[in-house]
Amino acid sequence: MSLRRVLTPQKFLLICAVFLVVILTVLIADATYNCNSGENATNKLLLQKYSDQIQKLKSDQITLAHKLKEAEQQIAASGQRKSSAWISGLPIIYLITPTYSRLEQKAELTRLSHTLLLVRNIHWIVVEDSDTKTDLVSRLLKQTELNYTHLNVLTPLEFKLNTEDPNWLKPRGVLQRNAGLEWLRSNTSPQKQPGVVYFADDDNTYSLKLFDEMRYTKKVSVWPVGLVGYLRYERPIVENKKVTGWFTYWKPNRPFPMDMAGFAINLQLIHDHPDVGFTNSVQRGYQETTLLTGLKISQYDLEPRANMCTEVLVWHTRT
Amino acid sequence: MSLRRVLTPQKFLLICAVFLVVILTVLIADATYNCNSGENATNKLLLQKYSDQIQKLKSDQITLAHKLKEAEQQIAASGQRKSSAWISGLPIIYLITPTYSRLEQKAELTRLSHTLLLVRNIHWIVVEDSDTKTDLVSRLLKQTELNYTHLNVLTPLEFKLNTEDPNWLKPRGVLQRNAGLEWLRSNTSPQKQPGVVYFADDDNTYSLKLFDEMRYTKKVSVWPVGLVGYLRYERPIVENKKVTGWFTYWKPNRPFPMDMAGFAINLQLIHDHPDVGFTNSVQRGYQETTLLTGLKISQYDLEPRANMCTEVLVWHTRT
Repeated sequence: MSLRRVLTPQKFLLICAVFLVVILTVLIADATYNCNSGENATNKLLLQKYSDQIQKLKSDQITLAHKLKEAEQQIAASGQRKSSAWISGLPIIYLITPTYSRLEQKAELTRLSHTLLLVRNIHWIVVEDSDTKTDLVSRLLKQTELNYTHLNVLTPLEFKLNTEDPNWLKPRGVLQRNAGLEWLRSNTSPQKQPGVVYFADDDNTYSLKLFDEMRYTKKVSVWPVGLVGYLRYERPIVENKKVTGWFTYWKPNRPFPMDMAGFAINLQLIHDHPDVGFTNSVQRGYQETTLLTGLKISQYDLEPRANMCTEVLVWHTRT
Repeated sequence: MSLRRVLTPQKFLLICAVFLVVILTVLIADATYNCNSGENATNKLLLQKYSDQIQKLKSDQITLAHKLKEAEQQIAASGQRKSSAWISGLPIIYLITPTYSRLEQKAELTRLSHTLLLVRNIHWIVVEDSDTKTDLVSRLLKQTELNYTHLNVLTPLEFKLNTEDPNWLKPRGVLQRNAGLEWLRSNTSPQKQPGVVYFADDDNTYSLKLFDEMRYTKKVSVWPVGLVGYLRYERPIVENKKVTGWFTYWKPNRPFPMDMAGFAINLQLIHDHPDVGFTNSVQRGYQETTLLTGLKISQYDLEPRANMCTEVLVWHTRT
């Protein structure tokens, strides 16, 4: 047959083999093609997508973590408005408050404690004129959420006002303020934590702004005091940012004719002059002068605050 | 040759074909294997890793977002201690404070504002005895972060104290307190937001605890007042949780021998009796009685607070 002659077994097998090779080549190509362009390509796209998603998530996470940190700081700071925690680095204001037993005492201390609760980094040193710490003051201080130190020292009878005496006859609070200064010298370290010392009577009225003004006192900062010395206010007179005199009615020739409420002192100065304080042996109105000259302060060292001593931020109120 | 006899061309080609098939099968298998176990396998592993990473990041993100929300809520809540935001549901304390121009006015209002800044849901209604709103009071109120309403009404000359008059000769703050009550009737709705009304003079001293005591007044709540009426304190006498009389020195036979600082009223009662208020035409010491009898309150309606009227939480201080 002509077919048998044309298609020898050899040729048939060769054709089969070639056919097989072609089929298998196509299969290999297809397998490789499927593998690369199918699942693999999808996977590569997915990988890109996932990678983008991870970048986005990481970036979102950084933003969230940042916001959370800010919020936590804000919480910490707001907590400190009414807690015993310090804001680190912010100078502490040490308030020395002499107090004595009288009908209005609880009301006055309550009222002052409300003001202090709104000020940061306050340490209230309350010194009773008493031979023991009274229950009234102990309870009141415990109930506030303030940082405080409770001291007591009795003024000897010879220095005490009698009930009939006018209140200016003898100095008040001398030993109590000195006890406060002694406590500061023994219990603080201005190198470790800067501070300011202010003598805050319990019947005065303090604007919250006053504490901002005194916080960064270098040596001694000064400001007006309202309702004092027969005047609407007393104040240092300031020219070219320096105190050049005083607007005051009562004993204007005193070296420092200022009320106790009219100045604050850097804590370092109290440490630098360990023997300086107040005394019962000077005439009326000279306590402030005794302290400031003892600290080697001259009029030109004074740092005028409260808008160059034009704003009244503390009032010498009396109940 | 024996080889030629054993290996016929057919057989040779068959062997070649089989060999080719084996080689190609190995190649296909290898191609498929390489494809799966090489790049594709790596990609699959990476995909799994990425997917895990995304899960972890999403979970972290949920945690962070949750923490942030909590922190933000905490900030909002702490802000309410010193902001205009209400704590929803907590009854509002409306304080009506009559005030008039004098040397101590700024100090007194400053001091009272500090106390109020520490109380939640306070609305301070300050009513000046003046024909205009003064700059001093306007500025002071703006500077506090309190919720306030600033009103003014001038007391006619015939009802005003002269400078030489003793301060008890004519009633003070009558028109101002009435203006506060009128404002409440026009601007509040006790159905929508419950409230309590308290007459808080600017020179008194208030314990923070007093506001907790008055907050949930049903009709009229009462408590002692310190430093009033020639006494260390005046107080309602309580037996079996009911007010049965008064410990007071001055005019003890008045129906309600109480100081204005000694009681608070549910806002609803003020709305229920739209014509009730204070008056310049009653004798001294009868303002409280005029108001409470107008509100149809009997002695037995009074709700004793402050530990059954044994604690002094408000003092009638005078500067």
